[in-house]
Amino acid sequence: MIFRVDIKEKKVLEQEVPENYNFLGGRGLTSKILLDEVDPNCEPLGYKNKLIFAPGLLGGTSAPCSGRLSIGGKSPLTNGIKESNSGGTAATKLAKLDIKAIILENQPENDEWHSLKISKDGIEIIDATDIVSAGNYETAKYYQNKYSNKIAIISIGPAGENQYQAASISITDMKGLPTRHCARGGLGALMGSKKLKAILIDDTGALGVKIKDNIKFNQIAKEWIKTLISTKKGLTEFGTPSTVDPMNALGCLPTNNFSYGTFKGASLINSDKLLEIIEQRGGKQGIPCQPGCVIKCSRKFNDINGNYLTSGLEYETLALMGANCGINDLDIIAQMNRLCDDIGLDTMEMGVTLGVIMESGLISFGDGKEALKLLQQTRQKTILGRLIAQGAALTGKVLGVRRIPVVKNQGISGYDPRGQKGTGVTYITSSQGADHTAGCCLPGRIGFRPETNKILDTQKPEGQVDLSLDLQIMTAVCDFAGFCVFVGTTKQNMGITAELINAKYGCELNTDDIVEMGKEVLRIEKIFNQKAGFTDNDDRLPEFFYYEKLPPKNLVFDVSEKEIKKVKGILNY
Amino acid sequence: MIFRVDIKEKKVLEQEVPENYNFLGGRGLTSKILLDEVDPNCEPLGYKNKLIFAPGLLGGTSAPCSGRLSIGGKSPLTNGIKESNSGGTAATKLAKLDIKAIILENQPENDEWHSLKISKDGIEIIDATDIVSAGNYETAKYYQNKYSNKIAIISIGPAGENQYQAASISITDMKGLPTRHCARGGLGALMGSKKLKAILIDDTGALGVKIKDNIKFNQIAKEWIKTLISTKKGLTEFGTPSTVDPMNALGCLPTNNFSYGTFKGASLINSDKLLEIIEQRGGKQGIPCQPGCVIKCSRKFNDINGNYLTSGLEYETLALMGANCGINDLDIIAQMNRLCDDIGLDTMEMGVTLGVIMESGLISFGDGKEALKLLQQTRQKTILGRLIAQGAALTGKVLGVRRIPVVKNQGISGYDPRGQKGTGVTYITSSQGADHTAGCCLPGRIGFRPETNKILDTQKPEGQVDLSLDLQIMTAVCDFAGFCVFVGTTKQNMGITAELINAKYGCELNTDDIVEMGKEVLRIEKIFNQKAGFTDNDDRLPEFFYYEKLPPKNLVFDVSEKEIKKVKGILNY
Repeated sequence: MIFRVDIKEKKVLEQEVPENYNFLGGRGLTSKILLDEVDPNCEPLGYKNKLIFAPGLLGGTSAPCSGRLSIGGKSPLTNGIKESNSGGTAATKLAKLDIKAIILENQPENDEWHSLKISKDGIEIIDATDIVSAGNYETAKYYQNKYSNKIAIISIGPAGENQYQAASISITDMKGLPTRHCARGGLGALMGSKKLKAILIDDTGALGVKIKDNIKFNQIAKEWIKTLISTKKGLTEFGTPSTVDPMNALGCLPTNNFSYGTFKGASLINSDKLLEIIEQRGGKQGIPCQPGCVIKCSRKFNDINGNYLTSGLEYETLALMGANCGINDLDIIAQMNRLCDDIGLDTMEMGVTLGVIMESGLISFGDGKEALKLLQQTRQKTILGRLIAQGAALTGKVLGVRRIPVVKNQGISGYDPRGQKGTGVTYITSSQGADHTAGCCLPGRIGFRPETNKILDTQKPEGQVDLSLDLQIMTAVCDFAGFCVFVGTTKQNMGITAELINAKYGCELNTDDIVEMGKEVLRIEKIFNQKAGFTDNDDRLPEFFYYEKLPPKNLVFDVSEKEIKKVKGILNY
Repeated sequence: MIFRVDIKEKKVLEQEVPENYNFLGGRGLTSKILLDEVDPNCEPLGYKNKLIFAPGLLGGTSAPCSGRLSIGGKSPLTNGIKESNSGGTAATKLAKLDIKAIILENQPENDEWHSLKISKDGIEIIDATDIVSAGNYETAKYYQNKYSNKIAIISIGPAGENQYQAASISITDMKGLPTRHCARGGLGALMGSKKLKAILIDDTGALGVKIKDNIKFNQIAKEWIKTLISTKKGLTEFGTPSTVDPMNALGCLPTNNFSYGTFKGASLINSDKLLEIIEQRGGKQGIPCQPGCVIKCSRKFNDINGNYLTSGLEYETLALMGANCGINDLDIIAQMNRLCDDIGLDTMEMGVTLGVIMESGLISFGDGKEALKLLQQTRQKTILGRLIAQGAALTGKVLGVRRIPVVKNQGISGYDPRGQKGTGVTYITSSQGADHTAGCCLPGRIGFRPETNKILDTQKPEGQVDLSLDLQIMTAVCDFAGFCVFVGTTKQNMGITAELINAKYGCELNTDDIVEMGKEVLRIEKIFNQKAGFTDNDDRLPEFFYYEKLPPKNLVFDVSEKEIKKVKGILNY
């Protein structure tokens, strides 16, 4: 079913899934609905925009790591199409309730706040007055106490309520903690503009997901799970923080507002150090964030007294709130992470913003205590707090900083594009704005090119456009199927995805079909953005990446504009 | 001659005027040079942008009101092409020195500030350390004391130095006061990014302007002067403030952040009241701002003690800093005007910004004292001060205001587009962003349409696109010839302009040629913006103007998108 919630009129409409949406899920569905229903020129925080929640095509099944929830809308940050997805327990429960999408429409004219309560009986709009202005942690606890600690909770914190452009939407993890975030593009602000505090999902008595050929499905899933467990051990044991060392060694770890590619304090924020602290304090590495996850890359980080502080604390957060701010203290970074999760702010956008603030001289590089205080100001709603919560682009403009690392107004994530050129191409060409999750071209086997039988050097311009696009397409497949990209954006996995979809829906897709479906997602997003006024001119990095040499390797971004323009031909939009 | 100043290398290059620039001047020349030389995708405050100063084609002659100076560059505020022109004494002196344009190029890497000293001997780059951070009033006095009180001074105040997006460039008037401003589009920030504090122009010993047929030229000029003196009496006696009453009566005087079309305090800020105060305190109405002005619409406004406070205080300032902020006290508005002139801020952008701030609830509508304090904060460089000096769009976003009256990021001037639909079309379609000076469709004879033999109702959608474009074209003619638009943007005056150019240059242009030359200016600007990534999507008002009815007449903006798109065909770009 698809549910439409008119949050102004307080009406819920249940509707059959239109036939042409049958094979759409996750990002594939959110983006298609946006193109079909939302005026690309609408003001993102106005009444015409919609916010769409959709589990992936394989959500709720036994396929491994298939519980990502896609949230889509016209982005308040980039002004273009946006999909941000995350783990947690929400997507699985929605899928089990046979909910293909929730479309949040319209906008209240008064100041009353509401939440949605979802169960097998449908969707109820409930008053949320009592929990307004609470952080995500308090909100989760409040609703768990009120209903059950087994419900999944999608919520916004004060940042979303205040319609800050860097506001995220939080999803509770398997412990019921609001540690998973659809972080990018300010979708929390869009939810805030609809005056929706939370969505509570109770799947008690849900009928579960229908699967045409259950035996075959489980067989494929089981085999894949085995493979993943054995091949993804590195992620289980170390998680994404293990990326700190290689990025530092390659000279592309963003440091001091993208001024250097290596960070002197790297060994104090890398995964060795992190694991050491986690062990000392009774934390844990290797925790799943969603049901059916066999990679389990997450962690529990305790404070100095051994009390739970935060989860996640991913590479991008370490890179951007750590190295990029010159902060070499994991305890401070963990507190920043916790604060952002609670207030409901994108840690990446805030890391980039803090780097920009430090460059302005307002506070110094490396001053973690002041950085923490600044983050707290977003909650206190001081002018400065309201400013920084709008993200790096606006903050940099107001503070007169000229080196602002953003594309389409969105902060660049933890890979300096001068040293990770494929990811740089993704930043430039993705309709999502600078976003490594749209197609992350990490060095190593991912860059293997069958056409040359060679592994690409990610620090040279050659071949990066093709690599980035391949990964953007395969990432889109993961995003519409509901998979965590850590299952691997490879041709082989595209084949497995096809087989699983075939077994579930009784169809006969092959690898090429699946890749074409991924391409179609990118095409739809490009068309939306074109209609919203985006042109080739928006497909570029800030000027300084092209002429300012990144020490110590003195790299510049030198993938030519001509190469970049190939994207149009490949995607055919 | 054309002078190129490389402000990084400290080199001045004198060069002959290229043949294809012979018949270009003012805005025609600044826009053409921008298209020829500046990458439309460059960052406006980066090293690739240029700032161009050019008197009009008839600058320095005996033609009436021909002393406007055009300043052009890629706008830090709109990110598109920008020309802003103003009276004062600079253009006349440049023309007499046979300087057709000054092109300021490149960008210093250090923090040293300079000024340019221009005389018959050329251009000298001089140190400006001693006068950095001074307001425009102090800067003018400083250079007048140092050199002579007969020089013309083009300067920026602290706003330009700080590269605030609402920063203007000031030009001294005939009394040597910095009261004339190229206000719009943040060109002051661009000058600040080049670390140029001022341009000093001494025309002692200048050879003056060469005119082919002096007798004929003077004859045409003399006759026109006679006509202007007799037909423009209203402007001489009352100036632009006389527009307050009719706009209020028509219900389109922007009030309380464009929430109402009439202002209860209108009679306290109209021209009757202004003249009353001026007379009481020994001020004066009917002052020329440039040599050869016979309309003399300006004024001298004294404070309560009879001491000089400010000049200008035009309708747009009264509307936007007065009615739009709910402020009904001319003394406060005059102080705001003085402060903006001194700091170097666009009074229109700041009026719109203050309206937005008042809507956010940070200060109240009507609270002039707090508004003044806020303006002072731009000088004190508080976070809030730095924010508001970036203009209404950024301020509104940060403060969470949804009704932000801007087009292409530039504040709408003193005519609510719902009630002045032709001017609304100009706001929408001009490459300059919301700017009434690009084609102001005031009601009355200006709307006479020969094709129907009727005067257009400016409050109905019909015919507004044609009217706006006619005026945009004829305004462009004024702007390239160097005329103040108050000579009248009429077909007849296009003919007179042609005759004057013919007499000066010995050519044979007719009215159609001149109109075509005006069209070409608009076309060039459209092409620049297209290359900079502007599309049809940028040609619209904020959403609320289309659905929120403006009381008391309950008007919405209802010129259709289809009509708006006619512009492309008419201008043929």
